[in-house]
Amino acid sequence: MKINKHYSEISESYLFSTVAKKQREFSAAHPDREIIRLSIGDVTLPLAGAVVKAMHDAVDEMSTKEGFHGYGPEQGYEFLKESIRNYYAGHGVELAADEIFISDGAKSDLGNILDLFDKDNTVLVTDPVYPVYVDTNVMAGRKILYAPATQENGFLPMPDPAVKADIIYLCSPNNPTGAVYTREQLAQWVEYAKAQNAIILFDAAYECFVTEEGLARSIFEVPGAKECAIEFCSFSKIAGFTGTRCGYTVVPMALEREGVSLNKMWLRRQTTKFNGVPYVVQKGAAAVFTPEGMAEIQENLNYYRRNAQVIAQTLEECGIWYCGGKNSPYLWLKCPGGMTSWEFFDWLLDKAGVVGTPGSGFGSCGEGYFRLTAFGDAEKTKVAAQRLKEALKTL
Amino acid sequence: MKINKHYSEISESYLFSTVAKKQREFSAAHPDREIIRLSIGDVTLPLAGAVVKAMHDAVDEMSTKEGFHGYGPEQGYEFLKESIRNYYAGHGVELAADEIFISDGAKSDLGNILDLFDKDNTVLVTDPVYPVYVDTNVMAGRKILYAPATQENGFLPMPDPAVKADIIYLCSPNNPTGAVYTREQLAQWVEYAKAQNAIILFDAAYECFVTEEGLARSIFEVPGAKECAIEFCSFSKIAGFTGTRCGYTVVPMALEREGVSLNKMWLRRQTTKFNGVPYVVQKGAAAVFTPEGMAEIQENLNYYRRNAQVIAQTLEECGIWYCGGKNSPYLWLKCPGGMTSWEFFDWLLDKAGVVGTPGSGFGSCGEGYFRLTAFGDAEKTKVAAQRLKEALKTL
Repeated sequence: MKINKHYSEISESYLFSTVAKKQREFSAAHPDREIIRLSIGDVTLPLAGAVVKAMHDAVDEMSTKEGFHGYGPEQGYEFLKESIRNYYAGHGVELAADEIFISDGAKSDLGNILDLFDKDNTVLVTDPVYPVYVDTNVMAGRKILYAPATQENGFLPMPDPAVKADIIYLCSPNNPTGAVYTREQLAQWVEYAKAQNAIILFDAAYECFVTEEGLARSIFEVPGAKECAIEFCSFSKIAGFTGTRCGYTVVPMALEREGVSLNKMWLRRQTTKFNGVPYVVQKGAAAVFTPEGMAEIQENLNYYRRNAQVIAQTLEECGIWYCGGKNSPYLWLKCPGGMTSWEFFDWLLDKAGVVGTPGSGFGSCGEGYFRLTAFGDAEKTKVAAQRLKEALKTL
Repeated sequence: MKINKHYSEISESYLFSTVAKKQREFSAAHPDREIIRLSIGDVTLPLAGAVVKAMHDAVDEMSTKEGFHGYGPEQGYEFLKESIRNYYAGHGVELAADEIFISDGAKSDLGNILDLFDKDNTVLVTDPVYPVYVDTNVMAGRKILYAPATQENGFLPMPDPAVKADIIYLCSPNNPTGAVYTREQLAQWVEYAKAQNAIILFDAAYECFVTEEGLARSIFEVPGAKECAIEFCSFSKIAGFTGTRCGYTVVPMALEREGVSLNKMWLRRQTTKFNGVPYVVQKGAAAVFTPEGMAEIQENLNYYRRNAQVIAQTLEECGIWYCGGKNSPYLWLKCPGGMTSWEFFDWLLDKAGVVGTPGSGFGSCGEGYFRLTAFGDAEKTKVAAQRLKEALKTL
């Protein structure tokens, strides 16, 4: 018996556990101080009424012999795939229902998709990066290259034709930086991928935050992307499904490598290693796209957008460089006073009782930067922004 | 870009699609004939009232800001792990909560667990076999050996010390044969696995059907199994969760290979490539283990057990050899009149309007055998048994 030796090559991330530990220690030392967390990527608003009603109705169906649903299609029910197809059509992307696969979340599929690729492929990720892209490939023993995302390139690295890559991860709106690619920028990535015979794995989990004209919500807004990209999306951010678990992956029919359809491979993977998403959850997810659901969802998204504005305004008033926050729930700021990411973490906790996430935890190019999120409570976010402003006066 | 070439090595299974096609064709040709399906492994009774109530309550929680649950622990909530721990303790198996990982189903975990092992391991499965064990290993390029399950060994193959294996799949109560290992028989497999330094992947999805003294419900009833086995189980059969999706995997703390804890590896895999099971579903699953839940569940299981008895009695009256059906929802019968599996399928459909599953679809040793399931409607199962009896008189 030989174990997968690559597991020992994954570097342990202590980012969020260290954040939690420092927070605990601070609370213990200062029991009177109220801490406000702007560190988490988790939502805080409850499920929308339309979703709640649809889930109740579905639970009731499951309680009768006539309405009971056993095994469903591994790739998801047609009613949900059809809703997603219409949602994409709404921003100008035509998909076939068979190109959409319902999953229990983008994180699962981002990891599992690697089953389709040989170990001997070079992976290109940005730095800073969502750690899952790196860890899932280290586990499989693949070589990883980094494209630096910096203040100079607006944290939106562009392809370097001199770099050879087979699998390219792009996340836009970006976690952690909140930077968003335009359609024209993505077109350059598509061109590069085609020239390299590479595949782009496009993480669109935060697409619902995009409002600005010209920014892409889907890589399939770019002509030709269907021949070189797979897109991952989720109900986690659009509809607060972080604890309800539903996402989807789009594998175009036109995507082939070595004469083989990637869509057919993924269908085979999912029918063999997956048994679909709960009927009750799929019914809840479909309700997101009803007129009532969409209206409620937009209210919730606007709530988070206002939080982002509150933080952004404060950063601007204080003259702190940042990106994100406009078409993204994340704000990525340059630590003031030349502080490192962890120095600013400690300073902000001490002076303002606010917890954020050190940028260096997402990669070496994140050093000196810091992530704040707009997913918190509105009143607390206002208090946090005010405290940040006051603290910065003392710097 | 190189794709995973092993996908092209998976043999396409036409078993269930051919069964469905033949059934459709028969219906079209004989629109007046009522067909009864005893072919599916899917349940037909609705969710238990206690489960339905718990899911409604959980949906209500998710509809308030105070009760809302976002990201949960990837490995499952403590309340559910504790319930499972108690369930195991009820049949004499002591587990630590950290040895239990909640999943979206046994099928997912049976596939995903292979992430932990090197490609260069030899896999041993029984023949006939649940196809997922084979396909998931073919996808990864592993060598597969078959242990023949035959009428002579009661469809319970025992280890052959001359055969070298690294990963051993055992499914008991067995799908498709319904045969169940005794504790003593499993002890021999544990002894063999230890001698080979192998790991047993034990599929206990049907354990809830075991009532007979001396038969194992968990491989961990065997002393020493915690050093060589991982167990997979599911709420699909015990509580009709085939469309609700919840299962669990037990990876003992004592299980190490090459000095590495498999429990720690699996935790790393799940936290990297999985985001947990819906809160609402975990609440429903925990309700299975309440006194009210257990009482309802036992009623449902007894309903299916009575179906199995009805079929078993008919087979006995007709002098047809079979196994299973006593501690299993599956009955595995020898096709009468020397028919092949598919000949009997056609004959049974034509003469009795009953659909079952040809044994040859599960492996070459299944040729000449046939699977019937007890998961159907009680009245229809009685009619099917009566029709089978009448048809056999004409043979």
